[in-house]
Amino acid sequence: MTSLKIGVAGLGTVGISVLKILEDNKATIRNRAGSAIEVVGVTARNKNAKRPMDISAYTWFDDAQDMVAHCDVLVELIGGSDGIAYKLVKEALSKGVSVVTANKAMIAHHGLELATLAEENNCNLMFEAAVAGAVPIVNAIRHSFTSDKITGVHGILNGTSNYILTQMRETGRDFADVLKDAQDKGYAEADPTFDIEGVDAGHKVAILAALAFGTQPDFSGVHMTGISSLTEEDFHFAGELGFKIKLLGSAEMHDDRVLQIVEPCFIPDGSPFAAIEDAYNAVYCECEYAETPLMSGLGAGGDATASSVVGDIVALARGESAPVFGVPVSSLKKVGSFDPREVESRYYIRFNVKDKVGVMADISAILRDHGISIETMIQLGRSPEQNVNVVMVTHDALREDVNTASDLISRLDVIFGEPCIIRIEEDF
Amino acid sequence: MTSLKIGVAGLGTVGISVLKILEDNKATIRNRAGSAIEVVGVTARNKNAKRPMDISAYTWFDDAQDMVAHCDVLVELIGGSDGIAYKLVKEALSKGVSVVTANKAMIAHHGLELATLAEENNCNLMFEAAVAGAVPIVNAIRHSFTSDKITGVHGILNGTSNYILTQMRETGRDFADVLKDAQDKGYAEADPTFDIEGVDAGHKVAILAALAFGTQPDFSGVHMTGISSLTEEDFHFAGELGFKIKLLGSAEMHDDRVLQIVEPCFIPDGSPFAAIEDAYNAVYCECEYAETPLMSGLGAGGDATASSVVGDIVALARGESAPVFGVPVSSLKKVGSFDPREVESRYYIRFNVKDKVGVMADISAILRDHGISIETMIQLGRSPEQNVNVVMVTHDALREDVNTASDLISRLDVIFGEPCIIRIEEDF
Repeated sequence: MTSLKIGVAGLGTVGISVLKILEDNKATIRNRAGSAIEVVGVTARNKNAKRPMDISAYTWFDDAQDMVAHCDVLVELIGGSDGIAYKLVKEALSKGVSVVTANKAMIAHHGLELATLAEENNCNLMFEAAVAGAVPIVNAIRHSFTSDKITGVHGILNGTSNYILTQMRETGRDFADVLKDAQDKGYAEADPTFDIEGVDAGHKVAILAALAFGTQPDFSGVHMTGISSLTEEDFHFAGELGFKIKLLGSAEMHDDRVLQIVEPCFIPDGSPFAAIEDAYNAVYCECEYAETPLMSGLGAGGDATASSVVGDIVALARGESAPVFGVPVSSLKKVGSFDPREVESRYYIRFNVKDKVGVMADISAILRDHGISIETMIQLGRSPEQNVNVVMVTHDALREDVNTASDLISRLDVIFGEPCIIRIEEDF
Repeated sequence: MTSLKIGVAGLGTVGISVLKILEDNKATIRNRAGSAIEVVGVTARNKNAKRPMDISAYTWFDDAQDMVAHCDVLVELIGGSDGIAYKLVKEALSKGVSVVTANKAMIAHHGLELATLAEENNCNLMFEAAVAGAVPIVNAIRHSFTSDKITGVHGILNGTSNYILTQMRETGRDFADVLKDAQDKGYAEADPTFDIEGVDAGHKVAILAALAFGTQPDFSGVHMTGISSLTEEDFHFAGELGFKIKLLGSAEMHDDRVLQIVEPCFIPDGSPFAAIEDAYNAVYCECEYAETPLMSGLGAGGDATASSVVGDIVALARGESAPVFGVPVSSLKKVGSFDPREVESRYYIRFNVKDKVGVMADISAILRDHGISIETMIQLGRSPEQNVNVVMVTHDALREDVNTASDLISRLDVIFGEPCIIRIEEDF
């Protein structure tokens, strides 16, 4: 029984958890893997950083590339789409060293190139931890739904924003306040942009789309809207109307084009996704045969993410040989984008208006002229000549028409600021 | 590129769906599998049975063993724990022919022997379809949670009983009525015993326990209670108290002993399992690192089950090499049983009593004498000298004490019939 030699690059929370799990669970992991997992080296930016674990027993490499030369598998936990992580992974794969990574940005941006490198050099590239933390959705698509035609993948894919949305709903506090609290508690980073603007979820959508549809990963085709412009009123109305607000990431095949979108949506209270709160993630597939399998679990955290990293290491020890994105790189299709403006759905729209006779009539007329039919329209309170919120729920309408009408409405002199438009997703 | 030669034994709903999926999705499956899947033969009890698909293009074998001689993989969809399926699978494995099966009864009863045979003959035994239909829980435990310590697995594992429970709750009709309706609609079999008495779910619990804990499958250690004694009143009270009734299958490690149990439970309305209705299944794992991953999906139906069967075939074509139960047979632990009477929980108890002064005092005294503390006690309606229901919810109590006290209470001459005792599970 030979051992699998791994090197760990990046010793943040996840990296340290990987070392801890490999150590704590050594006998079981060896038994499941069929061989020992040997950590031949570790590397990080700063050898002497304060860490929750003594790493002096591991061989330290100042030069990560030097470490790669000693490995069967590089565990890349540095992060970032480009820079040192990207360079190191390319270096490893071109030498036939397999890579396990949690780096969604890198896979979303460079997945095609890296999968090609892996294939050319007979090694593998694994990234279960890159999507939805401990939820084994990559393995499920790569290994379980292989007989099926997947037509859609939808998920709550960012723990930080889901935590913020949960807190905003439960406490009634505003976005800035809850974000600050999340930062103080370590649930959000100092620069939270990627999390709150949908970019992190967008990386994951690009990865899931490639796996599910056998298409080339295309992050540039992901349309992203974040959660930072949501207000207490939106949560109030969502509740009144029987919905919760969730940041949904979706990929859907529409004939030969793929829709990739991240945006806050109204989903029915009581539906499976509505129960996914705080840092939990969930992914739901639409399949021809399996219909609608759903998976949920902890989307972030050192141990949860590390458990997926080590799962990938075990798979490599067992001789994992599935193609990186489920099919050989040469057959990954290059497909066009389905524009979100073509999405037909019910929409929630909120305007901030001056409370004045005739406002509702003006708004209604513009919507009518764009073929948008209103299901519900509510003005919150009365406050003559002051700002009030008007919210409405449309019947099924084309997003493009909703956008155009909203733009026109925004230009009325009784309207303040930008309208808030939220898609209503009945299915999750 | 060579092909993988498979033979399909059993051409019921699932068998026919397997052939259909392999045909309809041939190009994609070949691409994902890395080789063509070639159906070298089919066999079933009756060659001329009426089927929804013309099978004349497939080579028919009257003798299933003869077919096995031509296969790399036997797809066993005959069913039954013993008899022809068991014999055929042993025959295949001993010749080094891998087996894909949906046969939970056979794996639950003979899993250890069959895994041993597979290992001795360097072939594999795959059974994703045996547990929870299209939900890829076997693959998740076998391949994804390999780094983790799983301490519990809980599931809604039987679609028929979940359908019946959903209908009873929604329509207020009684068990016999709903069962008959389910049989008429094809959701329940003519002999529904295995489904409604928890046996089918019990088979799945035995399989999940072995996979999750690395223990020898032990169906004889599964304690099973079905749903046939539930009444409208139980659903009424469950609703009043904020619960739904679900048939839960659970496996838990308690130190070195394993609890395996199937019984109807009260679970909180609004919890993830409460959203699993009709023929849907769900499984929830308790892990040290991944915490609480959950999966749900269609638990039955030809296409859903067949999609899991074909997924296993693709895995074999790719060279799947994981041990049958996740670790080598020699290291599957033989462990003792944890007796359900040792389970401490809140319990719901319903008695049918004669409405007479002092009844509640008698019941309360017996419970007190057994250290059982009552949280809620309700007598439904008043009907002097007639039968009425008394229901109560206990604080945490040992099941053994609840059983003993209930037995004593049953012997009071004001009590009719057997008490109904239902565990309250707060976590799902």
